[in-house]
Amino acid sequence: MTDEKADHKTIHQWMDAYTNALEKKEIAVASALFDDNSGWRDILAFSWTIQTFEGPGAIEKLLTDRLAQVNPRGWTVDAEPDATEGGLSFETDLGPCKGYIRLNKGKALTFFTTLEDLHGHEQPIGKRRPSGLFDDDKTQSWLDRREAEQAVLGHQDQPFVLVVGGGQGGLALGARLKVNGVPALIVDRHKRSGDEWRSRYKSLTLHDPVWYDHMPYIPFPENWPVFTPKDQLGDFLEAYAQIMDLNIWNETEFTGGSFDADTQRWTVTVVRNGETIALHPVHIVMAVGNAGFPAQPDFPGAADFTGDQYHSSAFTSGEQFTGKNVVVIGANNSAHDICSDLVNHGIKPTMIQRSSTLVLRGSTNSKMARPLYSEEAVEQGLTTEKADYLNASVPLRMSEQHQKQIWNQIAISDADFYKSLTDAGFQIDFGVDGTGLFMKYLRTASGYYIDVGGAAMVADGRIAIKSGVAVERLTSKGLILSDGSHLDADAIIYATGFGSMEQWVERLISKDVAEKIGPCWGYGSGVEGDSGPWEGEIRNMWKPTKQTGLWFHGGNLQQSRFYSHYLALQLKARFKNIDADIYQPN
Amino acid sequence: MTDEKADHKTIHQWMDAYTNALEKKEIAVASALFDDNSGWRDILAFSWTIQTFEGPGAIEKLLTDRLAQVNPRGWTVDAEPDATEGGLSFETDLGPCKGYIRLNKGKALTFFTTLEDLHGHEQPIGKRRPSGLFDDDKTQSWLDRREAEQAVLGHQDQPFVLVVGGGQGGLALGARLKVNGVPALIVDRHKRSGDEWRSRYKSLTLHDPVWYDHMPYIPFPENWPVFTPKDQLGDFLEAYAQIMDLNIWNETEFTGGSFDADTQRWTVTVVRNGETIALHPVHIVMAVGNAGFPAQPDFPGAADFTGDQYHSSAFTSGEQFTGKNVVVIGANNSAHDICSDLVNHGIKPTMIQRSSTLVLRGSTNSKMARPLYSEEAVEQGLTTEKADYLNASVPLRMSEQHQKQIWNQIAISDADFYKSLTDAGFQIDFGVDGTGLFMKYLRTASGYYIDVGGAAMVADGRIAIKSGVAVERLTSKGLILSDGSHLDADAIIYATGFGSMEQWVERLISKDVAEKIGPCWGYGSGVEGDSGPWEGEIRNMWKPTKQTGLWFHGGNLQQSRFYSHYLALQLKARFKNIDADIYQPN
Repeated sequence: MTDEKADHKTIHQWMDAYTNALEKKEIAVASALFDDNSGWRDILAFSWTIQTFEGPGAIEKLLTDRLAQVNPRGWTVDAEPDATEGGLSFETDLGPCKGYIRLNKGKALTFFTTLEDLHGHEQPIGKRRPSGLFDDDKTQSWLDRREAEQAVLGHQDQPFVLVVGGGQGGLALGARLKVNGVPALIVDRHKRSGDEWRSRYKSLTLHDPVWYDHMPYIPFPENWPVFTPKDQLGDFLEAYAQIMDLNIWNETEFTGGSFDADTQRWTVTVVRNGETIALHPVHIVMAVGNAGFPAQPDFPGAADFTGDQYHSSAFTSGEQFTGKNVVVIGANNSAHDICSDLVNHGIKPTMIQRSSTLVLRGSTNSKMARPLYSEEAVEQGLTTEKADYLNASVPLRMSEQHQKQIWNQIAISDADFYKSLTDAGFQIDFGVDGTGLFMKYLRTASGYYIDVGGAAMVADGRIAIKSGVAVERLTSKGLILSDGSHLDADAIIYATGFGSMEQWVERLISKDVAEKIGPCWGYGSGVEGDSGPWEGEIRNMWKPTKQTGLWFHGGNLQQSRFYSHYLALQLKARFKNIDADIYQPN
Repeated sequence: MTDEKADHKTIHQWMDAYTNALEKKEIAVASALFDDNSGWRDILAFSWTIQTFEGPGAIEKLLTDRLAQVNPRGWTVDAEPDATEGGLSFETDLGPCKGYIRLNKGKALTFFTTLEDLHGHEQPIGKRRPSGLFDDDKTQSWLDRREAEQAVLGHQDQPFVLVVGGGQGGLALGARLKVNGVPALIVDRHKRSGDEWRSRYKSLTLHDPVWYDHMPYIPFPENWPVFTPKDQLGDFLEAYAQIMDLNIWNETEFTGGSFDADTQRWTVTVVRNGETIALHPVHIVMAVGNAGFPAQPDFPGAADFTGDQYHSSAFTSGEQFTGKNVVVIGANNSAHDICSDLVNHGIKPTMIQRSSTLVLRGSTNSKMARPLYSEEAVEQGLTTEKADYLNASVPLRMSEQHQKQIWNQIAISDADFYKSLTDAGFQIDFGVDGTGLFMKYLRTASGYYIDVGGAAMVADGRIAIKSGVAVERLTSKGLILSDGSHLDADAIIYATGFGSMEQWVERLISKDVAEKIGPCWGYGSGVEGDSGPWEGEIRNMWKPTKQTGLWFHGGNLQQSRFYSHYLALQLKARFKNIDADIYQPN
């Protein structure tokens, strides 16, 4: 049944034709089963990295280059008999794999493949979990082993992986590495796990709903609020680290690192409790967030301003501003949260919007997430793991098209909401090409506000808006704007965002390495802040970079959860000395 | 269709006949649908306490006395069309209910009913979870509210419920009360949550497998060992308290309490950090375990013994006994664990078995648990909640019969194992009536060992056994036994168990109250240590006692998990001033 002209209407028929062609090594036949607009997204299974292959040509090349080496086999389909989309499972020489496929008129439109574990080194979970009894060493208890390990780790024993940053990203990856048996150490500059969240402004909550935010292995309990308050998240993360039994050095600053090509190890210096310690990990994972350092414009006259001025990352609460004129520069998430908090403390702040903002109603955000991440989805058996898988199965090119349609609908359904903002003088955008919030997030991770109450305050004037103006300079008493107006201010808060991730590399490692690696985050969409060429995947994230032994992990809680699995798998393979080479098509 | 002679072969047919009879108030017809040997176990739904009604007569009386008042309605059956057992749901005036029923030849053999929540006061979980935003008080964050609550609790604000003991029982109940919005304070004498476990002997692990042991709301992660080491459990419990955001006063000793019939409140004194504080809760829950104080025999000559002697609860590790003669008195769980640990440290201990012991192979224990609590059960969709429900649905009288059959089979299947022990001089029993481990546990919570390695050491002589002997007296150098022999000893460890739960009441409240309440634990099976009359339910546990405002919670992790739900529901009803009266058939 390798007739490429056959009408493969169902997943089962299509997979018969496809696997038949693969078995016979008829690569042209297999490739012709893909739609002209198709995308094959692969996480490790075929490419041993994260790549998307667009169209039958690229797919034919992939199969030509990799089929023999990858040796996929044992394909089974998990779908109703007449389904045109559904799940796959198969295996390769490396390990068990999964997949997901969507057909369009008998051809594959999206094809998603992932490596899920390594043969012979499977995660010891479920049926493979340890016994807990004194099996190996009859005199060492769990506590003895743990204390012995911690006593030598970073000294006589070097961690295979050093994770820099113990926020949700570092902890999620740490947990994955722990379960996979890869010796790792997390270093974090805060006193307690969770302090990164605790130290933010008082009114902060997650802007995504709880179903989207679970950590790996330990989901939030069912009484957990929809939008997690920041201190509660901090406490959860601290308890998470304890339950998952992670090795963390708190109050430890990473001060520098260099890679030795001879030993294939890093020399890293950290300062812990005042002591400088040299560490020699084989791999470093930067899990310091998907942003760099606080970005604060340096306005002329800033030194003359007699009031307080600081970056949003230093804001805690509106309490201390009673009776004051507060100006917030910026109009994205932080700016809105800070202004809302000021309003709740009886202050009328002024928000200076320098360029347009994408605003999304919280309820619309939850509605968009609902098919995959909601109580209804859970009730219908869509586990977090399944939701993540479906979510990842669409190539970025198609996500852009799909998101555009969604945002066209939002513009109509939420027209009154947007009118209330534009009537107040607020400038709205849906991204330069109308692809909306999610693509903005993946491109530059900035330029939006998911409304949790601030929009109504903008609309009814509790937050004053100055829009479409730049700040010319500061005076002792306030700001002079580009429209010539003067704005009195007792305090100025810069909600002006953060730099890019690669800033961390330059500061912590070197400018050379930062340049070698190139931009982190973004996918080459070509918009401002995410210049091309088109990559089709988030750059340098969760996959090998051009610097041996240097990796990046970050993003929101959903991304941390999902990609930490595949990043841990790559590190486990290296720890187990499993030979696999990374596909470089060009 | 109220013809009581009809053949109600399926659950659906039976329930049609039953609900029809209830609707028409034909109680004799409804009662005649029950088998002569039937048992109806009710948790709160019909009796507003925990009771079992045995046989059609008792059931007819229950319905006569309670049907109008309880007003059950909206019965639906969750079972295949031809099933003879399955789940029910219905509601009463109080709230939503569930049930489970098993037929025998068209009549109900087991009937189980439970109240699951209270109308208008449903647990805020799942779709009812809070938003997490600053909905109510615009200026108070989660942390502000939490700190404000903790500052006044136990001082200006009195807890509605005082939970005495912060082990797994107190924490599970605390979590249920927290989620249900019942103001509660847990007092515990240890420094950190989990210390009760951490302070036990080094080699201790749970003897039940992980699937049986989950806490409510936060299950153990899927990498958790089958048998949890005690320090790891301690860490989990501490993290659990943090995630569930419980109010706990650690290092706090409960020193006395008395109930004021006029105010219907307790006056309790606790000592916290050296300060004596008076608390005035409406309810006290004793969650101090299902045992009392260390029980240590007072042998003649004990003062003459020149070596160390202490109770098993003070044993930590075999490390300090190198080269010593150690005698362990007792032959149950602790005695075996301690002897195993001594063997693992190169010592050959002598175990003095004063009376026979029930021993169960760990693998057989796991096999017995497998249909309800195992990886296989989870894979087949049997959630922990469903497993607990099935587990609770069988009345004790039938459990005894069923367990007897199981233990007859174990005697055959594990004959070689038992022979290896009796060949070594060890005395085995399966309970006086052959009903085995679980009934022993429910009757007296003593007299058994679930093998996690000690039995092989007894069998091959690494642990020496002196069986069927009493200790006559101690000498300066050892023990004189009832067979006249002298046993040299450098150290004696009393693995002689603990007293009964009511000891706590006598010590912490008063002898009068202890006498009024009567025995706690046991179900009146009539065996030694669990004298009659037959109660058919565990005495005084998780339900109202004869002392207003005094409750008992305890048991293993499974019982803590399951019954904390129903105990919290009873306390919530009282907090919400919901009127319901407790059924007292006699």
